[in-house]
Amino acid sequence: MTGYFDNAATTVPSQAALDTYREVAQMYPANPSSSHREGKRAKALLDELRERTAALLKTQAQYITFTSGATEANNIILSSLIWRPQRAQAVFSGIEHSSILNWSQLLTHLGWTVTAVDAPGGVIDASSIASALTDKSRLVCTMLVNNTVGTVADIASITKAIRDVERQGSMPPIHIHCDATQALGKIAVDLTSLGVDSASFSAHKFHGPKGVGFLYNTKANIASLSRGGGQERGLRAGTENLASIAAMVTALEEVSANLAANLAHVTDLNNLMRTHLASVPIITPKEGSSPYILTISIPNVPSQVSERILSDAGFCVSAGSACSHNERQKGAKAQGAMRLSPDIAESSIRISFAHDTTHASCEALAAAILAIYRNHR
Amino acid sequence: MTGYFDNAATTVPSQAALDTYREVAQMYPANPSSSHREGKRAKALLDELRERTAALLKTQAQYITFTSGATEANNIILSSLIWRPQRAQAVFSGIEHSSILNWSQLLTHLGWTVTAVDAPGGVIDASSIASALTDKSRLVCTMLVNNTVGTVADIASITKAIRDVERQGSMPPIHIHCDATQALGKIAVDLTSLGVDSASFSAHKFHGPKGVGFLYNTKANIASLSRGGGQERGLRAGTENLASIAAMVTALEEVSANLAANLAHVTDLNNLMRTHLASVPIITPKEGSSPYILTISIPNVPSQVSERILSDAGFCVSAGSACSHNERQKGAKAQGAMRLSPDIAESSIRISFAHDTTHASCEALAAAILAIYRNHR
Repeated sequence: MTGYFDNAATTVPSQAALDTYREVAQMYPANPSSSHREGKRAKALLDELRERTAALLKTQAQYITFTSGATEANNIILSSLIWRPQRAQAVFSGIEHSSILNWSQLLTHLGWTVTAVDAPGGVIDASSIASALTDKSRLVCTMLVNNTVGTVADIASITKAIRDVERQGSMPPIHIHCDATQALGKIAVDLTSLGVDSASFSAHKFHGPKGVGFLYNTKANIASLSRGGGQERGLRAGTENLASIAAMVTALEEVSANLAANLAHVTDLNNLMRTHLASVPIITPKEGSSPYILTISIPNVPSQVSERILSDAGFCVSAGSACSHNERQKGAKAQGAMRLSPDIAESSIRISFAHDTTHASCEALAAAILAIYRNHR
Repeated sequence: MTGYFDNAATTVPSQAALDTYREVAQMYPANPSSSHREGKRAKALLDELRERTAALLKTQAQYITFTSGATEANNIILSSLIWRPQRAQAVFSGIEHSSILNWSQLLTHLGWTVTAVDAPGGVIDASSIASALTDKSRLVCTMLVNNTVGTVADIASITKAIRDVERQGSMPPIHIHCDATQALGKIAVDLTSLGVDSASFSAHKFHGPKGVGFLYNTKANIASLSRGGGQERGLRAGTENLASIAAMVTALEEVSANLAANLAHVTDLNNLMRTHLASVPIITPKEGSSPYILTISIPNVPSQVSERILSDAGFCVSAGSACSHNERQKGAKAQGAMRLSPDIAESSIRISFAHDTTHASCEALAAAILAIYRNHR
């Protein structure tokens, strides 16, 4: 879609992904949990898709659990704490997605201590996370690419700092979970060198279908709430959504094959926008951010107003932070943890690119933004 | 698919549903939570789909929450108990689907009392449920059509019996949840006359796509675990799977329009099978069962063996009870609550029909079953 700059909220599904969806829905209609011929065919495809996903992530198939998306993958990790006999401590970066931050309320209700660590400018600092740890820490959630401003966390340093504290304090192992939803298919994701215990992903962020994603998890002590029908090794109940999983893998293979070229193209677009918008406050740091996200501020213009003016002109951008306009407050919480000045935060808009975004549409968007900027100086 | 008799595990998606999926995925790619033009178009369609779903169920749109399927819908109701300050009692019919029964372990772990009520022959008895209630009862789960043998519960009588106990004991209201997954689109479902507070549904049981379903819930005190991004009125977080929801509504409208004709056709098939299999023990009662499910026993032949022989001959039936071969034990639990003799239970196979099942394929299946039966007498 020309004028669509909200790819961090969701991407347009690829034609190949949609073709795969239909083909698999028609050709493999049975339930992979059925043990007759048709069920076994579906199960064989499911196994193959798990292997292909693992191969793309250079990990083992046994660590991949297909889910309805990253929110559910995050929920599996967080809800696992409910089984624990000891109410201990969870540490979140303060800029996590709402599907993580919103767990604070229930965990606190159940007697857990939840510590949210500020990340000024959207940068999660390893020593700040390490300082928040106590001998009661059991879980740390630290995202890879921030959905609001696009900053990329140095997860390898963060995990190293956490492991150092663990070792020095002879503490039980702390589970490190990484929401990598905004990273996969856009920047290189090397789970082994990140050193995290689990990570979550959503297909619709990389041109796959909505309603499907996966959890990468290496730890046996993660338990689902209900253990349901025993699918997905007991972590995720419910009939497997084979067509969507297959479409996701098609999309992931596409973006993975083109990762470097897409990254170069989007970096070009990002630089182009930064050049055109040199007079406008830019929130996303140039260094250490994903080029797929560029968050700026149009001073004196509330985010929603800019968004509406741009929408009327044919451009889709996101007002401020949240994927979800249902939850402005939560976006505000993450913005608070970034320590943005309220003026800047309330006038921010997020521009997010895809590999098929064109230079021409970027030029047009930049001109439209500059017009709003000049009219409200 | 000729020879496919496992429609209670999953149905083949309809062509119209798949057409809708592709059309909506292409034409409405934006996130319904985005407030720009494309987001608003997606949100308008989501609202329309909710209205259409509510209209088919003769209820209000505000009571419909779209989910990834019935398992997730059940989870919302069950997990809601985790927020409650008082650890009280939950009552389940003993023949619930594993996505309900498997909650026993966590609820017990958290201090709840879980009472599973036997349902001899697959019939949930109103007075047995009522007898299990105490002044600590907060939730009753009682399914509409049993997935194992097809018995239809008299939910209206069960809810009346529960409300009577409530009134006599001046007890706080008991939430009544009904898993109606095997009913919708097959037999008439009138939520108002059933009198339940909530119910769950899965699209893939009525020729919609996998990975989508919905929760009907009339009560404000149901709280999701995380409250996530605020989608679906806070009950279900995660980007809405608009294409699958639209495909589900297409499928539901199709089966609803043809409900009576389909029911007559499947009743014919069921009667035909019963006639042919008159010499074989039939587990599903003729009266008070859904004609879509016919569970029989082939004495002296373990379920898995019959299933494999039939599969090799081109017929897909389900060995015994479970949708999920990952969880034989849970199927066994439900069979125990039915008080089937172990001989009968261990040699049972479930035949489940669809509106496009043919007389000829039923004749062929009956002949194949009779051959196994005669060979093992």
